[in-house]
Amino acid sequence: MKEHPTSLRVKLPVFVVVSQLVIVALFAVFVTYDDQADARLQGNGTVAMDNALYTDYPFFTDIQVMIFVGFGCLLAFLRQYGFGGMVFNFLTATFATQWAILVQGYFQFSHDGQIHLGLINVINAEFACAVVLISFGAVLGKTSPLQLLVMALLEVPVFAATEWAVLTYLKINDAGGSILIHLFACYFGLGVTFVLYRPRLNEGHAKEASGYRSDMLSAVGTLILWVFWPSFNSVLSLRGDDQHRAVLHTFLGLSASTLTAFALSAALNKGGKLTMADVQNVTLAGGVTVGATADMMISPAGAYALGAVGGAACMLGYRYLSPFLARRLRIQDQCGIHNLHGLTGLISSVAGICAILAASEEVYGPSLYETFAHRAPVEGDPKLLELRQQIPGLRAGLGRTAREQALYQVAALVFTVVVSVIGGVLTGFVLKLPCLGSPPDELCFDDDLFFDVPHDYEAPSPLSNKCTTDDSSV
Amino acid sequence: MKEHPTSLRVKLPVFVVVSQLVIVALFAVFVTYDDQADARLQGNGTVAMDNALYTDYPFFTDIQVMIFVGFGCLLAFLRQYGFGGMVFNFLTATFATQWAILVQGYFQFSHDGQIHLGLINVINAEFACAVVLISFGAVLGKTSPLQLLVMALLEVPVFAATEWAVLTYLKINDAGGSILIHLFACYFGLGVTFVLYRPRLNEGHAKEASGYRSDMLSAVGTLILWVFWPSFNSVLSLRGDDQHRAVLHTFLGLSASTLTAFALSAALNKGGKLTMADVQNVTLAGGVTVGATADMMISPAGAYALGAVGGAACMLGYRYLSPFLARRLRIQDQCGIHNLHGLTGLISSVAGICAILAASEEVYGPSLYETFAHRAPVEGDPKLLELRQQIPGLRAGLGRTAREQALYQVAALVFTVVVSVIGGVLTGFVLKLPCLGSPPDELCFDDDLFFDVPHDYEAPSPLSNKCTTDDSSV
Amino acid sequence: MKEHPTSLRVKLPVFVVVSQLVIVALFAVFVTYDDQADARLQGNGTVAMDNALYTDYPFFTDIQVMIFVGFGCLLAFLRQYGFGGMVFNFLTATFATQWAILVQGYFQFSHDGQIHLGLINVINAEFACAVVLISFGAVLGKTSPLQLLVMALLEVPVFAATEWAVLTYLKINDAGGSILIHLFACYFGLGVTFVLYRPRLNEGHAKEASGYRSDMLSAVGTLILWVFWPSFNSVLSLRGDDQHRAVLHTFLGLSASTLTAFALSAALNKGGKLTMADVQNVTLAGGVTVGATADMMISPAGAYALGAVGGAACMLGYRYLSPFLARRLRIQDQCGIHNLHGLTGLISSVAGICAILAASEEVYGPSLYETFAHRAPVEGDPKLLELRQQIPGLRAGLGRTAREQALYQVAALVFTVVVSVIGGVLTGFVLKLPCLGSPPDELCFDDDLFFDVPHDYEAPSPLSNKCTTDDSSV
Repeated sequence: MKEHPTSLRVKLPVFVVVSQLVIVALFAVFVTYDDQADARLQGNGTVAMDNALYTDYPFFTDIQVMIFVGFGCLLAFLRQYGFGGMVFNFLTATFATQWAILVQGYFQFSHDGQIHLGLINVINAEFACAVVLISFGAVLGKTSPLQLLVMALLEVPVFAATEWAVLTYLKINDAGGSILIHLFACYFGLGVTFVLYRPRLNEGHAKEASGYRSDMLSAVGTLILWVFWPSFNSVLSLRGDDQHRAVLHTFLGLSASTLTAFALSAALNKGGKLTMADVQNVTLAGGVTVGATADMMISPAGAYALGAVGGAACMLGYRYLSPFLARRLRIQDQCGIHNLHGLTGLISSVAGICAILAASEEVYGPSLYETFAHRAPVEGDPKLLELRQQIPGLRAGLGRTAREQALYQVAALVFTVVVSVIGGVLTGFVLKLPCLGSPPDELCFDDDLFFDVPHDYEAPSPLSNKCTTDDSSV
Repeated sequence: MKEHPTSLRVKLPVFVVVSQLVIVALFAVFVTYDDQADARLQGNGTVAMDNALYTDYPFFTDIQVMIFVGFGCLLAFLRQYGFGGMVFNFLTATFATQWAILVQGYFQFSHDGQIHLGLINVINAEFACAVVLISFGAVLGKTSPLQLLVMALLEVPVFAATEWAVLTYLKINDAGGSILIHLFACYFGLGVTFVLYRPRLNEGHAKEASGYRSDMLSAVGTLILWVFWPSFNSVLSLRGDDQHRAVLHTFLGLSASTLTAFALSAALNKGGKLTMADVQNVTLAGGVTVGATADMMISPAGAYALGAVGGAACMLGYRYLSPFLARRLRIQDQCGIHNLHGLTGLISSVAGICAILAASEEVYGPSLYETFAHRAPVEGDPKLLELRQQIPGLRAGLGRTAREQALYQVAALVFTVVVSVIGGVLTGFVLKLPCLGSPPDELCFDDDLFFDVPHDYEAPSPLSNKCTTDDSSV
Repeated sequence: MKEHPTSLRVKLPVFVVVSQLVIVALFAVFVTYDDQADARLQGNGTVAMDNALYTDYPFFTDIQVMIFVGFGCLLAFLRQYGFGGMVFNFLTATFATQWAILVQGYFQFSHDGQIHLGLINVINAEFACAVVLISFGAVLGKTSPLQLLVMALLEVPVFAATEWAVLTYLKINDAGGSILIHLFACYFGLGVTFVLYRPRLNEGHAKEASGYRSDMLSAVGTLILWVFWPSFNSVLSLRGDDQHRAVLHTFLGLSASTLTAFALSAALNKGGKLTMADVQNVTLAGGVTVGATADMMISPAGAYALGAVGGAACMLGYRYLSPFLARRLRIQDQCGIHNLHGLTGLISSVAGICAILAASEEVYGPSLYETFAHRAPVEGDPKLLELRQQIPGLRAGLGRTAREQALYQVAALVFTVVVSVIGGVLTGFVLKLPCLGSPPDELCFDDDLFFDVPHDYEAPSPLSNKCTTDDSSV
């Protein structure tokens, strides 16, 4: 009997086992422990509690909860694709993180021919993983697990190389990753989904509907992401007041966008009723819009205003822009990542540029040159010596002016968007390879295709066929 | 076409947008960063890791999880009101916290005409938020989101003023907030629901029933609250052994009340069967009953006994007192907050008074005057100098005796209950304003009223009409 | 009217109330605070932030979340036994922890006739609790809550005595508890279920089936366990680089076993489809297999390989060994604990022995004698003085060689398995006492037996009878 083209029986094990052999071989040859994890490097004066584990681990677990539990639940909003949303998120996240440990390790954590592994690498890899999962949102329900793994396989190196180039050559400020994470992930995902365009899905799909219980679980995912977002935006900030501000601003931004989401959901939906899709997504917009400025002195009011603006942009995007993109530009953005990560990422980046232009010693004091490290005077500048009397360990910088720093931010933004679109489109073509087992249109959003579902899976409500005509709002 | 009176289309956006404009204006004019978050105030000797963020943030995230995820799930126990329970909790919590940052900030964190914002303000605001959410439990399913926002708008200032008056003038010991949080929230909520009395609901309501899956999700909420309750009770304790005890006592109290809840649920329900409502609520009683004494030397056995007593009182309250209140006193307490927060808060307060009367230097050593700061000798008292040889930084107190401190506790209890009842009743009258869109009786507990529900929402079980006759036990 | 034999009305309250009276009496007489929690013992130089609370509490909350929320959700996978899975887990966990505080306290934390209680005791008690919950997995759905409480009552002392004997006399390395926790729990549970053998259940049972929504919730439980497992494996490690490695290795091991689980699930199930039971269980295998070596210098590649091997063994166990055990050896292992804890525990123990034999000063430097404390030279050995120049506080050890340490590991493994099997079998006989209200075969896996279920509980799908014939794979 010939194997069905979407059957995972042979393809998935082959891909996974080959990947695992390659990964374990690369680990064996190239990966060793970093200073914080290597027993041999603990010397006479090592104080156990000064280990980086104790500053990093609480943030690490928060981000783990966001990625595996929060994202997993959020993506389970479709009534007949809950397994797919949650479980393919799990599979993709696990694979992307392993792969990112190696690829990012090569770019950022290697010396003497070895990648030096500590918890900090894993945290960075989780960011790369978040990038892949955001892009996943564009193609949810329309891709096989194998396609998702291949997407991760290709997206992680493109991301890691972009990140490395931006951090090494452009040297930007981007605490919450608005440019490198949200914009990259969004435009990569849109590039992929553009190539994977399925015209028949624009007419609606019987199974592309959320359900009452699946909407509840998805909302739990939103709440988990909401609660831990301050950790996400602050984990890579400078320790101390910078990180403290990043936490406060993220909380305020999310609070503002949540209220905006409720207000606009009631204003724009028929009958003045709230929709769960808005509650699940738009409430989170503020976390992205404060991202680039999270550690800066933008004032509490500034963070609040940014959150409200982000929520409004995200909501209007869902309402007016997404249908336009799908019908006119062939961009079918399943979860609306362009609204939650693209528009908000752009707003955040612009806000970051404004905040950089406005930053002055008057507001920041000498720690201006810590928050904006590249504006610190170059080694040998007498101003540096003067500053070091106030901040003893201050590192020499590049002596950039605010304007120069702002221009580098613009350059990074343009570069990131261009690379991500190209990367996404090329990846999309790879994903069209027939051997990757893309689901046929009629089996999209259907857990029965890839899972041995329980007996109560079917039992469709008598209303479910109506979905084709009036349920395209999710 | 005339807008339906419960439609949110105009009202909710108007209320929210006006609130947001007011809030952002107040933030812009009155709110700046505190010492821990202001870049300019980081001086020469500032050690980044000494920032208050690192002691406060882990407790902050725990409390965030409790409020948004734990409470949200717990309140989603009704089968046809899961969206409302979880989502209105989200909306109300977000609004209450923002508002409390400003109002509490005015009372407690302002100097030089500015509110100084740090994470500690947000933690305090979360407590004010918890107060509003507990009160919400009394009117769950019977109020529009606009009513809930107005309730938060009014309750937060009354709470903040009460809290300020008690802390400034009466100066009590109340680590877990038994008086200020649980009793205030309970009696305020009972005041509101008393005014909003709906006689027809006493005869049962077809939709006022939990469901199998909604009961599961609600139990997850309980487990989340259970697990993080020690953080709630200990976050505002003195650091060190006081906080350590608060964690231990809360854990022991919850453990004891959990066993009691199971025992009495089996003993009192028909057929010797457990009910999920008991598991969801009564298990948590111990967290409240150990609240007031959480940081005191009440001994592990004392904490355990308090938890067991609290569980028993809460269970008996659900069984016998709540029906009485609803039928005779016109107090329809939807989630039974009087059992979980009122009775237990009273027990806790009395236990606190006993523990204060029993506290002696013999048991506490000199740190008696840290745990009970107002019993420390006044400045100038030779006893203070003597104590400072043992505890160098000991602050001067008011020289109160144990009896005096106990009397202040009684005064605070009476004052808090009186203010909260009056505040709740007055708020109830405001909530009756027709423009707030209160749901009609027949549409209570029904998500279809305020949400664009998914297609599988209806599909009522053939048994659902039976609920009217025999399901008033939730 | 005579009480039904499975009614909890009298039995459960009697058991619980008697237990609570005994526990509170034992607390009152024997339990006091430890140095970290006793106000009187805080002296002149006590620094509040040095309290053990601040190193232990974050790990404690992680483990609490695992036990109450993670396990609770995981065990709720059966469609008609969700209350039982989640709620009996809650009840059993609470009781087991209280009891373990006393019993372990007697063995490990008592001096001067008193048990000295601090958070560290509760963390240890949670491990004892985890043991009971793992064993519970073998008999899920087939036991009354009273049987589970009696099982906890008996298993905790057997476990605590075994643990004490192994730690005191054999002195092994077992950071993640592969031997003491996973193997003990597994073989104890198998012993119990062997005695409770129900031949009719081997022919399948109409209610022994998962459901679509229950599978989702169970997967959330898995994700929670997955995310926090590094805390579980590292909490009792030495602080510093040892704990850092334990976190890294657990993360890598879980990542590897997750990929393996997906690959083999697709390869081995009919139609090349994934099953949720595999996703829920096999993904976690890596957390167990790296347990015994978590803090050792096994290299990142080693941890990854161990995880992959563990995943494969676990998967093959579910597929081939469990049916064999059920049919031929009368061991009905409901959740397959032999695969997730037994096989993996054995692999982990063997890996631990290999890692001990391979450990050298070349790889570990002088901290070899910290990680393997019993290999440190005995007091008086000149080598010890020499080492103390490099590690000032190094404790004298037993001067064991690697080979000797390995032999003690073998002895501990054998001893633990033998004791747990005997303990489990004897406990099984006690659980057969008719007064414990064991459910009859036809009411296994049915929440209606012990719960007052909501009205939507029944509504069985028309397909549910088919389960008897083809659904024995869960």
